[in-house]
Amino acid sequence: MARGFRKKIQQKNTENSGFGSNLSGRFINKDGLPNVNRKGVNIFNRYSWYHTMLDLSTFNFLSYLVVAYILVNLFFALIYYLIGVEHLTGIDKSNPVNEFIDVFFFSSQTFTTVGYGRIAPVGFMASLVATFEAFLGLLTFAIATGLFYGRFSRPRAYLKFSDVAVVAPFKETSALMFRLAPYKNNALTDADVVITTAIEVMENSSPKINFYQLKTQLSKINTLALNWTIVHEIDEESPFYGFSEDDFKNTGIEIIVHIRAFDEVFSNTVVQRTSYVTKEIVYGAKFIPMYYPDKDNLSTVLNLDKISDYQKAELPVFMEEEEE
Amino acid sequence: MARGFRKKIQQKNTENSGFGSNLSGRFINKDGLPNVNRKGVNIFNRYSWYHTMLDLSTFNFLSYLVVAYILVNLFFALIYYLIGVEHLTGIDKSNPVNEFIDVFFFSSQTFTTVGYGRIAPVGFMASLVATFEAFLGLLTFAIATGLFYGRFSRPRAYLKFSDVAVVAPFKETSALMFRLAPYKNNALTDADVVITTAIEVMENSSPKINFYQLKTQLSKINTLALNWTIVHEIDEESPFYGFSEDDFKNTGIEIIVHIRAFDEVFSNTVVQRTSYVTKEIVYGAKFIPMYYPDKDNLSTVLNLDKISDYQKAELPVFMEEEEE
Amino acid sequence: MARGFRKKIQQKNTENSGFGSNLSGRFINKDGLPNVNRKGVNIFNRYSWYHTMLDLSTFNFLSYLVVAYILVNLFFALIYYLIGVEHLTGIDKSNPVNEFIDVFFFSSQTFTTVGYGRIAPVGFMASLVATFEAFLGLLTFAIATGLFYGRFSRPRAYLKFSDVAVVAPFKETSALMFRLAPYKNNALTDADVVITTAIEVMENSSPKINFYQLKTQLSKINTLALNWTIVHEIDEESPFYGFSEDDFKNTGIEIIVHIRAFDEVFSNTVVQRTSYVTKEIVYGAKFIPMYYPDKDNLSTVLNLDKISDYQKAELPVFMEEEEE
Amino acid sequence: MARGFRKKIQQKNTENSGFGSNLSGRFINKDGLPNVNRKGVNIFNRYSWYHTMLDLSTFNFLSYLVVAYILVNLFFALIYYLIGVEHLTGIDKSNPVNEFIDVFFFSSQTFTTVGYGRIAPVGFMASLVATFEAFLGLLTFAIATGLFYGRFSRPRAYLKFSDVAVVAPFKETSALMFRLAPYKNNALTDADVVITTAIEVMENSSPKINFYQLKTQLSKINTLALNWTIVHEIDEESPFYGFSEDDFKNTGIEIIVHIRAFDEVFSNTVVQRTSYVTKEIVYGAKFIPMYYPDKDNLSTVLNLDKISDYQKAELPVFMEEEEE
Repeated sequence: MARGFRKKIQQKNTENSGFGSNLSGRFINKDGLPNVNRKGVNIFNRYSWYHTMLDLSTFNFLSYLVVAYILVNLFFALIYYLIGVEHLTGIDKSNPVNEFIDVFFFSSQTFTTVGYGRIAPVGFMASLVATFEAFLGLLTFAIATGLFYGRFSRPRAYLKFSDVAVVAPFKETSALMFRLAPYKNNALTDADVVITTAIEVMENSSPKINFYQLKTQLSKINTLALNWTIVHEIDEESPFYGFSEDDFKNTGIEIIVHIRAFDEVFSNTVVQRTSYVTKEIVYGAKFIPMYYPDKDNLSTVLNLDKISDYQKAELPVFMEEEEE
Repeated sequence: MARGFRKKIQQKNTENSGFGSNLSGRFINKDGLPNVNRKGVNIFNRYSWYHTMLDLSTFNFLSYLVVAYILVNLFFALIYYLIGVEHLTGIDKSNPVNEFIDVFFFSSQTFTTVGYGRIAPVGFMASLVATFEAFLGLLTFAIATGLFYGRFSRPRAYLKFSDVAVVAPFKETSALMFRLAPYKNNALTDADVVITTAIEVMENSSPKINFYQLKTQLSKINTLALNWTIVHEIDEESPFYGFSEDDFKNTGIEIIVHIRAFDEVFSNTVVQRTSYVTKEIVYGAKFIPMYYPDKDNLSTVLNLDKISDYQKAELPVFMEEEEE
Repeated sequence: MARGFRKKIQQKNTENSGFGSNLSGRFINKDGLPNVNRKGVNIFNRYSWYHTMLDLSTFNFLSYLVVAYILVNLFFALIYYLIGVEHLTGIDKSNPVNEFIDVFFFSSQTFTTVGYGRIAPVGFMASLVATFEAFLGLLTFAIATGLFYGRFSRPRAYLKFSDVAVVAPFKETSALMFRLAPYKNNALTDADVVITTAIEVMENSSPKINFYQLKTQLSKINTLALNWTIVHEIDEESPFYGFSEDDFKNTGIEIIVHIRAFDEVFSNTVVQRTSYVTKEIVYGAKFIPMYYPDKDNLSTVLNLDKISDYQKAELPVFMEEEEE
Repeated sequence: MARGFRKKIQQKNTENSGFGSNLSGRFINKDGLPNVNRKGVNIFNRYSWYHTMLDLSTFNFLSYLVVAYILVNLFFALIYYLIGVEHLTGIDKSNPVNEFIDVFFFSSQTFTTVGYGRIAPVGFMASLVATFEAFLGLLTFAIATGLFYGRFSRPRAYLKFSDVAVVAPFKETSALMFRLAPYKNNALTDADVVITTAIEVMENSSPKINFYQLKTQLSKINTLALNWTIVHEIDEESPFYGFSEDDFKNTGIEIIVHIRAFDEVFSNTVVQRTSYVTKEIVYGAKFIPMYYPDKDNLSTVLNLDKISDYQKAELPVFMEEEEE
């Protein structure tokens, strides 16, 4: 009976997780961001537009740029049209639609500063607007330059995690394991891991969430070139000590993983977070090796597709009775 | 009687605050910058123009750019005008004003490199000036690009602090508390806080300022996703031990707060400072919770408008007599 | 007899090298990158194109840019040609080749936004394509700006290592030594070194690789201005204790070097790695000094060409028998 | 008698200064760079051109840009001239000088992409060269953008040091002191200082340089807002213990100072180095205070012109005889 059991956890819960102890879903989303909604600040202050632009996918980012480019040109085309096409040379005045098309192209030639001159401003107002449109264009591309650089120079760990954590046989007992590997041509060194687990417990017959730091066999590694299997032995000091398969299935568990490493190309510290919740923990399984020598025996091959591959593995039976 | 009392502080004052002990207003302004004026270096050396440009508000920054753009074009327009409009093609020579307007627009078309060519230089001098104006234009936009990038990639903590610190009931005694929360979509981890307090004391009957490091219940936190209430228990080791409500109101106190955290998007350490002075400390109050589960119980909502909300709270009476 | 001997290593092997213990060539290539091939992720996800662009040589990088520029213009020239040269003014229509040449140049004038206007779009389709080509051109140069900056602002240690490590006489015993020096006008301080060695041993009559941390005489240095000779004394705690010349020649050894320093110009930590394998270790040799006072005795001259220069040196005979 | 005296230094000399112990002038120049010349690597590899461009003064940097701009345009003008001015429209063909002037301006209009079009390429060769000149122009400005950004975003401490160090009365003995202050509107926190001194000593009657770490009263400071006087007490553990005025004047001494702090605007660690040699040490002097409250007593004024101001101060006589 799970609820009763969980009261037995002996490890002192940690106080500095930064999360509250009330129950409202996952703490850390799979992508590593906290599962928190902010309100009460107006929308402009609640978002860092730069953080937002950096988090967009490449496709979305480029789409926004193209849409913004079209909208800006439509806006300026309208202004030139309202000023009057007679303030521009070279406009096709055969009908209003052609006029608008030509001022639109004039606008784009001004905004990008290509300025062929086939269409050129002659009147004061059109010249003045063009003066500012070209200026705005250059500032916009100055900002775009910064955004592009910010996006691709943003230090990232590029770590792939196994989809699940397993409870595998380990020495004479068992251990909670998951693994990760760098999947890009970046060079990571001095990696370390911090694992915090949130476990739902009954305290004075009301549910509450406690946080525990999980010890690992190896919490630092010199070079993160191959995969790294992180092993938390379920010994007497573990909050999972004595957990049966049912306990793992029925208890609200979240394992919050925080990896930090040094990227030698960026010369910067990079971090990545993820979490495993109850349904992502497989009891009685072990991972299948994912690297092997190449056929000439001159180098090591790391097969990243195998990162989540595991096989069934018998766990030693925990002698619960003995303690009583 | 406050002055007398303050002499009783037992904690050793810290020497490495970096501030002098003479009395000249607040040490740290509310925005976190030291309250110091520099003189004696000439104005060009006293300011880092880059630090200055980064500290400008967005509105001021853009305004400066626009004004500079207009001034540069007026300057070059004047030069082209003095060289003579006959060195340019396509100028409207109907009257001097139109001439000047046209050279102004020619200047802007050169500076932004839009170069329609309707107005173009033909003479040697006008061509030479245009050659350098276009060059200057590109360098200017190169600098602007750097400034934009510097401005929005500048690592910042985006922390909102409560307007006041409170002296609230805590365990059997009381504690000085204030709170903070990140208000943007940035992801902060590994936050730590250092609190130094400056207290005005009488030493050999002349006023002097002593500095004390304040201990906190929790000086590090793993994830700064929700709000963080920083708690300094007023126990026997606190410099505020034995302070009555009157003492808090009549003593010159400044609580200097220094937060440091790791921003996972920038992969950089970010810091933020603030300070609370005597009039920003509320005696006998406690903060009202500011986060709660959302209605589906799947996520946590953090209401940032409530960050400074507190309610009255009775404090235990300090038994001053007992010590004697 | 080497194989037997190597079993005697007393030092505990380190577990956190991050490398596996199977045998598949060098662990770290001479240039510092791990000798690992990744597979199983598709090619777009397996490479960080930004890391790749930063690792290209200057010549390759510029070549790629030029080739890309030509290809983009050929692509757009084809589109303009298919749209029809009658949508452009100023085209030399004497024959199809000249037409294509002219649309190619029109494309380049649009992509770079130079836009002379001698050739200019008049039709809707040509104008529309030109609108996007100019936009694409500016974005491309925005990206190029970021790549250039990323390339030359990338923090690097610029350390030159001696080609070989030597086993030299040291105090009464011997020591493994290699040396390094900064070869550019960068200013490095607070350097430290970590040396891990991989040694092939026989365990239960099957070959296996063990990792050992090598102690050095001096693992930190304040200023890295001259050369730095790193000295690992082969004393009883060294895994090489008792190695004869033959042992050094016949054992699979890899000495993995990891240097970390602070670059004062970039204000950033820089790292560099290299490794020495069996054939790069010279037994019975010592380095020749590589710096000396200049002729006015006012400054020190560091001759970087001498970094790998060594001379023969007699080593004390190791009394293997004594231990038995 | 100085030489003899210096042999008495009891402190163990530090080995990890990174400098050799031969005598060849100052180790660290006043501007903080090591006094070392490198040779033996070819000139292209010996300099990091990026470090060099960042170290240029603003005037030199801009001058180089202008000169490069002129040279590039002369180069391309020559090419266009050799191709033949008949491949360009709008050239003033009255005489060869005017032709060259016009191709020069055409070149500049292409390089900056201003492209008025008054002069435009018509022939194949001229168009082809213009195609690459415009491309080169954009890449050049991409690089210039990076250099500008690199230059002004380069983290620097902006510390002003006193011109001299003084040996001043301190407690019952004396102390070596110098001071520093930030002179710009940057915000430095968490500053720390490391002082190494090089002292010329006689060892076995040949001169040699020993290095000693100097202890300071306060080696860390929280906020570097005012000036910071660094105090090395000359007590029994100091290498200067027992030095007379003559010893200070006749011994080869170099005090190497290394300051490290955190800049809150750049969110980066900044460092600055300097050194004081024998002739920059004033015996029997103390610094004059350089900050005071402003007239409204609301803020502190720091007068940076006073940083090197000192006055004579009597030192306690050292009782050398007592030791014998």
